[in-house]
Amino acid sequence: MPTESDQPRGERALVADIRRLLRTPAPGGPPPGDDLAAICPDGPEDLLWSADLLMDGVDFDSRIHDWAGIGAKALKVNLSDCAACGTRPVSCLLSLSLCNDLDYESATRLVQGLVEVAGRYDCPLMGGDTNSWDQPTAINVTVAARPVPGTRPVLRRGARPGDLVCLSGPVGGSLLGRHLTFEPRVALGLDLARLPATAMIDVSDGVAIDLWHLCDESGCGAVIDPDAIDRLVHPDAHRRAAGTGWPARDHALYDGEDFELIATVDPATPPTRLAELGLQVFGRMTATGGVVIGHGAAVQPVPRRGWEHFT
Amino acid sequence: MPTESDQPRGERALVADIRRLLRTPAPGGPPPGDDLAAICPDGPEDLLWSADLLMDGVDFDSRIHDWAGIGAKALKVNLSDCAACGTRPVSCLLSLSLCNDLDYESATRLVQGLVEVAGRYDCPLMGGDTNSWDQPTAINVTVAARPVPGTRPVLRRGARPGDLVCLSGPVGGSLLGRHLTFEPRVALGLDLARLPATAMIDVSDGVAIDLWHLCDESGCGAVIDPDAIDRLVHPDAHRRAAGTGWPARDHALYDGEDFELIATVDPATPPTRLAELGLQVFGRMTATGGVVIGHGAAVQPVPRRGWEHFT
Repeated sequence: MPTESDQPRGERALVADIRRLLRTPAPGGPPPGDDLAAICPDGPEDLLWSADLLMDGVDFDSRIHDWAGIGAKALKVNLSDCAACGTRPVSCLLSLSLCNDLDYESATRLVQGLVEVAGRYDCPLMGGDTNSWDQPTAINVTVAARPVPGTRPVLRRGARPGDLVCLSGPVGGSLLGRHLTFEPRVALGLDLARLPATAMIDVSDGVAIDLWHLCDESGCGAVIDPDAIDRLVHPDAHRRAAGTGWPARDHALYDGEDFELIATVDPATPPTRLAELGLQVFGRMTATGGVVIGHGAAVQPVPRRGWEHFT
Repeated sequence: MPTESDQPRGERALVADIRRLLRTPAPGGPPPGDDLAAICPDGPEDLLWSADLLMDGVDFDSRIHDWAGIGAKALKVNLSDCAACGTRPVSCLLSLSLCNDLDYESATRLVQGLVEVAGRYDCPLMGGDTNSWDQPTAINVTVAARPVPGTRPVLRRGARPGDLVCLSGPVGGSLLGRHLTFEPRVALGLDLARLPATAMIDVSDGVAIDLWHLCDESGCGAVIDPDAIDRLVHPDAHRRAAGTGWPARDHALYDGEDFELIATVDPATPPTRLAELGLQVFGRMTATGGVVIGHGAAVQPVPRRGWEHFT
């Protein structure tokens, strides 16, 4: 769980290099680096996909986390990518490199945890690759998804100046447990594709940095309302703040793995509709200026800071 | 690179458990455990997919192998799965957990090696997930593929007693270098889907064990012609044999990662057609009896033995 700013410079450069090497799909498809990518670069199928590789000691800690929850998380982080594009999961693949020290019962719990989630989200496990080695366990899940009829994938790049910036729930302090127990916002994502939201991203790295990503792709800035974000501070962020001594709001902005959705919507969207969807407005898109927080002349820049390691 | 017989009992049981948990796709789709799986369990799309997770010290050794070749292998093993089903690759995803010790240039070579292969096989890289950790590098590639018009995927389960068993090239000793430098038999796989071959598998674990897999799925046995397999012993198998003291034929039967195709074809297939395709007959499917080698009454069982570690 490195923060973006903590990433080795080489890794950041590599990610940028890889993005330049990605095939740009047909018009309307997700651009390189969005939450999902096209499977068929030239269409006509509307299937999308994504993969996430989780590593023991980085994305989970097998000394303290239950293997069923770890297996569940490996799929749920991918389902959150489906939600972030407003798409319905279709199926998944599981690749395992299991630590040789891992006993059969724990490995079984990992798989069962994943399959339980797969069943609830109608995202059946179709196949995979099982290996073992003398190193810590690594788990890759690939998920396929598609928009429901009458909708299009909601991308990071569609936000416009003046759009309202919304969150689907309170944030911060997920490391106290919610990074494992969260439920991906798949149904809400589909509702937001029907609205439609103009742009969307899930909070994996943190509200601040993920809003930066959305702004970068949309060519906009955003101003966060400090009072609104304070109403979205999760109780876990307050608990974390008691330990770290940081403001709880900082945990809300800079902790990661909340897996809530940040959605931008047309400012004419009726507030009652937003309330029905459980969305809370916490900012507004601007033409320029990056991500800032504050009122009027008292705005302050919001750094591109991501989330922290367990350790 | 564990042999199947060397796999921890827990891992073998887990693989069997996982297979039971996989969704069975619509009729005609690949059953659980074939080289590719369906993406859409209920159709109508004909897209298939597969994932392989390669690990430093197991599937490659970064102390001796070039990173460009390692990146290329990570995609080629998946393209070989496409070939084994007689399908054309569509696109791929790359997930990386890079060792923190890995320098930027090496990581770049890894990605460039993969992208070079992706270009040659028209299997563009669409996205992925880049991470780093303090452990050895792990690389997951997911590939999507589909049959070409007028063909169906060739599965492991279609062989019938009396079918000829063919190999696409000489085998054994791939660890001397061909496990990295091989070219997946994608074009040949498509030709075999057009023939059509009755069943197919690529030689990843070894001729003996992969033929066992094909027999298991087809509900058949197979008898190997010892003279024919001796003509298919790769020069590398002889070189290996000089070092190990084993018969070169054993290296041909039990070494893995040749990535040639084993195809079964109707016995009425003209020998000239097989010759045009570069296929060499080395056995015949039987109604029962597992995999054996020999003539007449002198047949001997072929053990379910797979391939060895580097070390």
